[in-house]
Amino acid sequence: MANHRLLELLTIDGSARRGSLHTAHGAVQTPAFMPVGTSASVKALRSDDLDAIGAEIILGNTYHLYLRPGTEVIKQCGGLAKFNGWNKPTLTDSGGFQVFSLRDISRITDDGVEFQSHHDGSRHLFTPEKVMQIQHDIGANIIMAFDQCVPFPAAHDLAEVGVHRTFRWAKRCLDEHTRLAGADNYRIDLFGIVQGSIYKDLRSQSAEQIVGLDFPGNAIGGLSVGESKAEMEDMLAHTIQFLPGDKPRYLMGVGYPEDLLMAVSYGVDMFDCVLPTRNARTGNVFTSEGQIVYRNAEYAADERPLDPNCDCMVCRRYSRAYIRHLYNQREITGMVLATYHNSYFFQHLMRNIRQAIAEKRFDAFRRAFLSRYVIYERAISPAESMANKLNQHNHRKNRHRPENEF
Amino acid sequence: MANHRLLELLTIDGSARRGSLHTAHGAVQTPAFMPVGTSASVKALRSDDLDAIGAEIILGNTYHLYLRPGTEVIKQCGGLAKFNGWNKPTLTDSGGFQVFSLRDISRITDDGVEFQSHHDGSRHLFTPEKVMQIQHDIGANIIMAFDQCVPFPAAHDLAEVGVHRTFRWAKRCLDEHTRLAGADNYRIDLFGIVQGSIYKDLRSQSAEQIVGLDFPGNAIGGLSVGESKAEMEDMLAHTIQFLPGDKPRYLMGVGYPEDLLMAVSYGVDMFDCVLPTRNARTGNVFTSEGQIVYRNAEYAADERPLDPNCDCMVCRRYSRAYIRHLYNQREITGMVLATYHNSYFFQHLMRNIRQAIAEKRFDAFRRAFLSRYVIYERAISPAESMANKLNQHNHRKNRHRPENEF
Repeated sequence: MANHRLLELLTIDGSARRGSLHTAHGAVQTPAFMPVGTSASVKALRSDDLDAIGAEIILGNTYHLYLRPGTEVIKQCGGLAKFNGWNKPTLTDSGGFQVFSLRDISRITDDGVEFQSHHDGSRHLFTPEKVMQIQHDIGANIIMAFDQCVPFPAAHDLAEVGVHRTFRWAKRCLDEHTRLAGADNYRIDLFGIVQGSIYKDLRSQSAEQIVGLDFPGNAIGGLSVGESKAEMEDMLAHTIQFLPGDKPRYLMGVGYPEDLLMAVSYGVDMFDCVLPTRNARTGNVFTSEGQIVYRNAEYAADERPLDPNCDCMVCRRYSRAYIRHLYNQREITGMVLATYHNSYFFQHLMRNIRQAIAEKRFDAFRRAFLSRYVIYERAISPAESMANKLNQHNHRKNRHRPENEF
Repeated sequence: MANHRLLELLTIDGSARRGSLHTAHGAVQTPAFMPVGTSASVKALRSDDLDAIGAEIILGNTYHLYLRPGTEVIKQCGGLAKFNGWNKPTLTDSGGFQVFSLRDISRITDDGVEFQSHHDGSRHLFTPEKVMQIQHDIGANIIMAFDQCVPFPAAHDLAEVGVHRTFRWAKRCLDEHTRLAGADNYRIDLFGIVQGSIYKDLRSQSAEQIVGLDFPGNAIGGLSVGESKAEMEDMLAHTIQFLPGDKPRYLMGVGYPEDLLMAVSYGVDMFDCVLPTRNARTGNVFTSEGQIVYRNAEYAADERPLDPNCDCMVCRRYSRAYIRHLYNQREITGMVLATYHNSYFFQHLMRNIRQAIAEKRFDAFRRAFLSRYVIYERAISPAESMANKLNQHNHRKNRHRPENEF
């Protein structure tokens, strides 16, 4: 594994880095935002849309894909990237986040997690070995270790149990992954995941344990699950010091544009989040001046595009009035247009971030972006935040915050 | 009105005709199949998709658009074609079919139809004059007279009442249309509609009355509402003799590929139907060999495209297995892909029809198409058929019919 270099670093600007991930299905420029295709589909988008907006890698979820359509179907159809008509790099999350969130229907032992399908109540057992087997069958280029995510907030004791179990499972994942790799048709890279809730001592311990296993990439899990933005930044700043700079660093489940800018400034290379797709479907889009709730009555006859400063296909062709109308009629096309714009917005932001790093002006870019972009306070409870991450299409109660957080 | 020639005829092949409609928003090659965009959106498609599949004119519905987003919004946004980001020719149906189908909540007098919104129960009155005003505000290139559609089956007496009222209303529509035309920013053409259920004497009478008003185009309404295919063909063959050949002839709400081929052979120029879009959303696609219910288990690992003989974007990139999976997960993208393919299939059929007419080999083309295409019998009741036309996403119970109808 030591001979393989997944990440090629191209520019360093402060702690921010620009690079390129080299996978069997092609290269991915970093920092990268990875659209989430839970069930082998980035909701409301097609592969040609993802190409058009400049996405280079998309996610799938092990838990969802294992249940439907089932691992065997995806394997028979040539693996995830071929199955979903994408044919470019993919990453699968291990499903740990999902099965631990099924709190009422999960039984957790050191062996693994027993859970019931949210589709039909059928019983299943995920062990670290099983999750590796599933992910190798699904065949993404990057797969994730099976970790224990503790709820937020978690007592130190519980978080510590999670850190230790995550380490034991990471070793089992690595063994099974190594055993399976010989039969793969192309290289599959396994990333480790650091846990530890919001406790610095546990984050240090977890990071040292995971990094010690020498995965080709390292992820930070268990953030953006309900803690404050200050806590998230604090944990990220603390944890990332332990993660080797010559390997990709992936901050899981993050986040808002301001979060991406913050995390890039500490040297994060990869992100994923359902925000652009889920918010679009609930009437909310990102613009260069902040989020707007496009379903609101004030836009009923607004002929401006969603974002007057955006050059995406949607903003060049459609008005707020039209997209609001489609939202109110629950027209599928409305979901498509809003999702396209939001996803473009995130990819465009990442392109600009990469360009700024290439020109060693990332800090100035971040300041300029945030001087125009009004941040909304997200007054949501941790439970809501977990639920949102589970993709349960909740409308968010965003509240305008007049002062700029930055 | 006599100086304006909407239809330019290019080729006659038997009774089949190829031509071009010249509208203020551009030309439309005929015979044309017009995708239905009831609420200003062809469900699950975008304007750039409609461009890509070769559609040249799309429909909107007066009843739906009047209620939501409201006539005023569309007028303020520059008319239907601008509002929906299409910017090409459009046609609005008068809403007659819709308000007469709201049987429990409509009160019909000679003045017009009083009905309650299916959204909020609010009361509204459609008179011929009102419907003309609404359609001029919506601003499609072609608008339709407000006619009385009788249910199927209808007694001769009731059908006769409908024919007479349709004629009286057609005259009122024409007067109001003429009055309004002076204030339009571009030319809007009003079509008359022939009714008469399945009674030849009433069809003759209605056709003579409507044609006598010298509309720039004539439509045949009240077919494909539950009568047999033989009855439909019989009524079409009888009625079309009365419709002048130098003006476009529009067969409303039709239909299946075999129906389009049949009707073109009698000289029909324009069609619309929700079949390609609605069937796609209920798990059913059209292929060169007939319809397939792609949601069926037999396609779970089928790596073939929806139609192996199709060269559309969807068939070039995605498998039946994938689209079936998306259908089962109720993924929006599944609706999008199936709708795209079906809509392409219909536009591609019309392109081939026009090419065949241009080369004076339409009959041979029709025979060749039907020799490969297996027709399914549609064992549905008239009430179901009416309901389907109202876009109520019913799953159809198609039953395989071994012999070819042709």
